[in-house]
Amino acid sequence: MGKKELRLRAVVAPTETVIVSAYDRDGKADACTLAFYMVSSHVPPCVTVAINATQRRKTLKSMLESKAFVLGFPSVGQVREADYLGVESGYKTDKLKNIGFTAIEGKTVHAPIINELPLSLECEIVHTATVGSHMQVTGEVKRILADESILNEKDRVVLEKLRPIIYDEEEGIYLSVGDKAADAFKSGIELKKTLEDTKNDNEHS
Amino acid sequence: MGKKELRLRAVVAPTETVIVSAYDRDGKADACTLAFYMVSSHVPPCVTVAINATQRRKTLKSMLESKAFVLGFPSVGQVREADYLGVESGYKTDKLKNIGFTAIEGKTVHAPIINELPLSLECEIVHTATVGSHMQVTGEVKRILADESILNEKDRVVLEKLRPIIYDEEEGIYLSVGDKAADAFKSGIELKKTLEDTKNDNEHS
Repeated sequence: MGKKELRLRAVVAPTETVIVSAYDRDGKADACTLAFYMVSSHVPPCVTVAINATQRRKTLKSMLESKAFVLGFPSVGQVREADYLGVESGYKTDKLKNIGFTAIEGKTVHAPIINELPLSLECEIVHTATVGSHMQVTGEVKRILADESILNEKDRVVLEKLRPIIYDEEEGIYLSVGDKAADAFKSGIELKKTLEDTKNDNEHS
Repeated sequence: MGKKELRLRAVVAPTETVIVSAYDRDGKADACTLAFYMVSSHVPPCVTVAINATQRRKTLKSMLESKAFVLGFPSVGQVREADYLGVESGYKTDKLKNIGFTAIEGKTVHAPIINELPLSLECEIVHTATVGSHMQVTGEVKRILADESILNEKDRVVLEKLRPIIYDEEEGIYLSVGDKAADAFKSGIELKKTLEDTKNDNEHS
């Protein structure tokens, strides 16, 4: 079988499900679920989300007004709540209250941490850019808060415990993260060494 | 157990492993593996990658010079090659040739498609921004090419067949995507309806 050209679309591969939260002008916590998220800088630590700017989402408005947001990672057990926060509008109802989620203010930024989410990043907005239908919002990570239950003894997040939600737009489903495939920066370094050894052997033979 | 504040870092949740490729000024195909990627616009379809700009990566240089790149998705079976393309430098050796990967020029952009990768997006660079240590490069998707073997009868990419690679910096490992957790835009809509019905019942009682 060969290669096939597909109808144009951006989301042909899995993305990650995250929940962004921010305070509106009245101090009310807004939150919405997104699938377009990446890490965008190591030093300083930054994350970027892309949010549909044509739909005038309330959480985006609150983020831009307060210049801050919290990025939260839901667990697979919260997939129903995460889906709800993506389909309901914060202009119409108190989404967080409806599903029994509670929020406290971040320590480093004026943005709400959702207590029920196992991992939260307090972010200060340092850059925005609108490209196409979406605004890309970059936040510098100012504080990370995690449930102790998802950490190992080195205070590293353990994926089997966090159980993050993967989103697949092709089939319209959420998935969990699967099994370990390989060690990073190991199999490639071994391959690099093997290739170099082979090259040296050839040059010297 | 309560919440714990963690040492500051951006990569505390899984990211996706992708391979970007571009032609240098001599027409040689460069490629490197990245973990910082997101979809950034629906209309027009755009994707964004963040690449370390402090390390003067050759692929980034080639991308910026040619104003184009191809975003390729490796399969779990190619995890060793993907890791290698991330640890070796294109200034020193012909990385693609070393691992037996071949490239052909894209149809819509001057950038190389790696034949061995099951899914490739031809992208024209429409926006860049440097924030912190990384440059965020946004490409408009101009053409999508997929192996027929990863498609269903509707020409949709099937994750169980693509078997994309998830990267976990916390434990330094690659993972596969796991099982289905829920339908998207369904469990949340059902929850929304239940909450609305409950509210109406209370108001009318």
